[in-house]
Amino acid sequence: MLGAMQEFELRVPRLVEHAEREYPTREIVTRWADGSETRTDWAGIGRDSRRLAQALERLGLKPGDRVATMAMNHARHLVAWYGTMGMGGILHTINPRLFPDQLAYIGNHAHDRVLLYDRAFQPVVDKLKSEWTTIEHYVCFDDPGPHGFEAWIAKEDGDYAWVEGSERDPCMLCYTSGTTGNPKGVLYSHRSSMIHAMSEVQPSVFDLSTRSVAMPIVPMFHAVGWGIPFSAPMVGLKFVFSCVNDPAVLCELMNREKVTHSAGVPTVWFAMFQHMDATGAAPDHLQLVTIGGSAAPRSMIERLMKMGIRVNHAWGMTETSPIGTVGARSPDWDELTFDQQVDQVSRQGRAPFGIDMRVIDDEGRVLLRDGKSSGRLMVKGPWVVDQYFEEPHRAVDADGYFDTGDVAVIHPDGTMQITDRAKDVIKSGGEWISSVELENAAVGCAGVAEAAAIGVHHPRWEERPILLVVKKPGADVSEGAILTHLAGHVAKWWLPDEIHFVDELPHTATGKLLKTALRERYKNYTLKAA
Amino acid sequence: MLGAMQEFELRVPRLVEHAEREYPTREIVTRWADGSETRTDWAGIGRDSRRLAQALERLGLKPGDRVATMAMNHARHLVAWYGTMGMGGILHTINPRLFPDQLAYIGNHAHDRVLLYDRAFQPVVDKLKSEWTTIEHYVCFDDPGPHGFEAWIAKEDGDYAWVEGSERDPCMLCYTSGTTGNPKGVLYSHRSSMIHAMSEVQPSVFDLSTRSVAMPIVPMFHAVGWGIPFSAPMVGLKFVFSCVNDPAVLCELMNREKVTHSAGVPTVWFAMFQHMDATGAAPDHLQLVTIGGSAAPRSMIERLMKMGIRVNHAWGMTETSPIGTVGARSPDWDELTFDQQVDQVSRQGRAPFGIDMRVIDDEGRVLLRDGKSSGRLMVKGPWVVDQYFEEPHRAVDADGYFDTGDVAVIHPDGTMQITDRAKDVIKSGGEWISSVELENAAVGCAGVAEAAAIGVHHPRWEERPILLVVKKPGADVSEGAILTHLAGHVAKWWLPDEIHFVDELPHTATGKLLKTALRERYKNYTLKAA
Repeated sequence: MLGAMQEFELRVPRLVEHAEREYPTREIVTRWADGSETRTDWAGIGRDSRRLAQALERLGLKPGDRVATMAMNHARHLVAWYGTMGMGGILHTINPRLFPDQLAYIGNHAHDRVLLYDRAFQPVVDKLKSEWTTIEHYVCFDDPGPHGFEAWIAKEDGDYAWVEGSERDPCMLCYTSGTTGNPKGVLYSHRSSMIHAMSEVQPSVFDLSTRSVAMPIVPMFHAVGWGIPFSAPMVGLKFVFSCVNDPAVLCELMNREKVTHSAGVPTVWFAMFQHMDATGAAPDHLQLVTIGGSAAPRSMIERLMKMGIRVNHAWGMTETSPIGTVGARSPDWDELTFDQQVDQVSRQGRAPFGIDMRVIDDEGRVLLRDGKSSGRLMVKGPWVVDQYFEEPHRAVDADGYFDTGDVAVIHPDGTMQITDRAKDVIKSGGEWISSVELENAAVGCAGVAEAAAIGVHHPRWEERPILLVVKKPGADVSEGAILTHLAGHVAKWWLPDEIHFVDELPHTATGKLLKTALRERYKNYTLKAA
Repeated sequence: MLGAMQEFELRVPRLVEHAEREYPTREIVTRWADGSETRTDWAGIGRDSRRLAQALERLGLKPGDRVATMAMNHARHLVAWYGTMGMGGILHTINPRLFPDQLAYIGNHAHDRVLLYDRAFQPVVDKLKSEWTTIEHYVCFDDPGPHGFEAWIAKEDGDYAWVEGSERDPCMLCYTSGTTGNPKGVLYSHRSSMIHAMSEVQPSVFDLSTRSVAMPIVPMFHAVGWGIPFSAPMVGLKFVFSCVNDPAVLCELMNREKVTHSAGVPTVWFAMFQHMDATGAAPDHLQLVTIGGSAAPRSMIERLMKMGIRVNHAWGMTETSPIGTVGARSPDWDELTFDQQVDQVSRQGRAPFGIDMRVIDDEGRVLLRDGKSSGRLMVKGPWVVDQYFEEPHRAVDADGYFDTGDVAVIHPDGTMQITDRAKDVIKSGGEWISSVELENAAVGCAGVAEAAAIGVHHPRWEERPILLVVKKPGADVSEGAILTHLAGHVAKWWLPDEIHFVDELPHTATGKLLKTALRERYKNYTLKAA
């Protein structure tokens, strides 16, 4: 049969060309670590990306070679993404907050040939240089001298034709910071990144257009910067970057540049609230805030919503590029009470087109979407990992689903709610107790700064929860007060058997509670009442 | 290199599965030609689409076979799309407004094996049955008897696995109604349709989510129904269909079902305005109206905008699936005056990601985006035709661009403005005069119902414009009054050499001015003053 539509490989350089052609003067603003600011635009990003591609080829890099970055959010980091992918390379974003042995491991495992880094991470680079065996070239993004990034790419003329190929070629590599074992790499393709971007800009996901002014506070090294560096040139939005996360700086920038969209982990908004309370300032132009990385507390959602801001509560992971679900509003949103709206946003949202999610029990049976049946969250889709980088086995089950390691329920309206990490669930008498729900309830108690719930051995119930609590400075909170507070939020049989006050809790490099260390510490613990 | 993201062929059944899973109860409302109404939902559409796929296979249809429809917008038509594409068939939407010889030609050229049609088109079917040589089965959508569509698919159980295959397989066929020669078929692939849908739902295109209640007034047989039947299940919106285009019916439905999004040609909105003026009624919930098919007059844009409705002025064609450009608002929209906003919307909009457009002169040189350089509009992209159905040659130039046949300018801000059809441009002394602009200016003159500008031979200037005018009933407008009016809107050298009053003007089957017939009529005409 004769007849066809045009061929068009979904490759990242198409994004850059589009932004250059349709939005050449839309700005990219960077506030650097030293307080200085620079402005460029999509025409400038395109030109510099071509220059970088030329500079990388001059170093002898070939398609498929890895170029690593260790950097905050800024225009040059963006250029590093598009320039590397545009010459067919694989951009490897390194999370500088990982532990040194993890950093050494992933640099070598990825076979990085070039490292582009911020001066702020010079000490890390100096420490690891002798351990990285494959990196041949180091270039500092914000070194203003003759060996810095700007001087390096300025030698090139930008007259460059992007490397073409299959949309299934890899373009990016990002390692997960697991709590056990070595980090694993997710190898994204041009195709997966582009389809993810097309999904992300839609109204029920990040709602992005050229009218948007976006300040991603989530770092570009954290789970593909939540995909925003790919969505941005697709719609030609204005970018506002800050290399520091001081809320005073962020708030001032947001107001001056009229930032409409922002995205970050809950910690970012806690800090912003403190700044608002202390100064009376507030980000006045924000329309939509996406919160992910870990669950947003209800009080945070309420406060942002009362400011007139749409809150997008999202769930995802490095393995899902990272959008899994987002808090798209339901059709009956306008008829809901404020409390019902907050209830809806408190869940982790809905699956956009492309994501097929389900929860299964320990025997692999698919559970009902009844808002009660809790099980392992499994996902499938064009931007979900199939096989980790250089791992011999596929990372999916026989039906093609990836096991997220999260425990969740799906409600009848399609909203998903994370209840725990699978390995953190406390199994008491055959029933599951969510450690996350216990912890979230506990931090709502006055005087509690942080809490961790873990299961410890119990002769009758197999496991029972205990709660480890860090008090707020100067606070005087009792075990009884916490239990009374918890009793108003969780089922009675969920109440922890013991509460221990501790000075601090262990964390992973990315700030998550290190439950493995706690479980290790309590593995031979005997409950007093048992 | 080991490592990969999941495979996911972009095929239409994925849309249906998504809508069934995530939005099972979101409604699809149909107001039928006889005034009755039915309601189904995405779960129902999915089930019936599977039943239709089974019924088609029972007739012996195989992947690649063509199933034609001749129908207005309704839930069963939607089922025909997804069911046919889901069994690997090619859905061929026939425009019942074509002339009988065109209808006979395309049915045979497409090798349609099945025709599904509305009872309203029974006379057309009866007339053409003897001429269609390949159609084996006729099923009437709204025949309530034992041979009607509902009874037919009710025999199947819906327990059906979609036919899988490459995303590059064809899924749909739509013929263009050209003014010369035989209609040509555009053969869409699953991939082109899916990428088009992902683009269409974004905020700067049709801005669709599950919260949208969409009533497409553009028929599903007209240029893929502007792609909305594919976008709808992607976001799980609520559909409201009407088989009749009476503005009283549309307005009542819009208000009762709280329609937020609508799309149609300018004629639809003219009729709606008349209804509003006569009754005082108005569609109260409309948020966004997309106007395409032909240029929207400024007065129409102004009136809709004054109602608080966002107007999306769009340009496209069957060959572009059909989105070419849409009237996405610029970043500085809020700072513009109302008149400046109307100016912006009066242009045909911007290219969404995927569409690469440019204008070229007669020598093929790419012209500047200066808002002045007028030339042939050329487009390229994943949802643009490469080769017509069963045509031996490609439909693109050496650079891969498709010649739209339109003449346009591109402004420095990226907005595109159609100035004429290439074959309708009047070439006077080496300069181009836009027949469309002359006509639009003329219909703004009191007493003018319709106008057509064509070029006639001139010994000195090669061509000069004459204007053919149909007066409004009872109006008494003079040649002098029209010239005075035109002088306020176009350059002096554009003013027509003569104005002829006529009783009516010839039209194509889809209601466009038939300029070829007019040019034929005036091909030996001698200007009085020449």
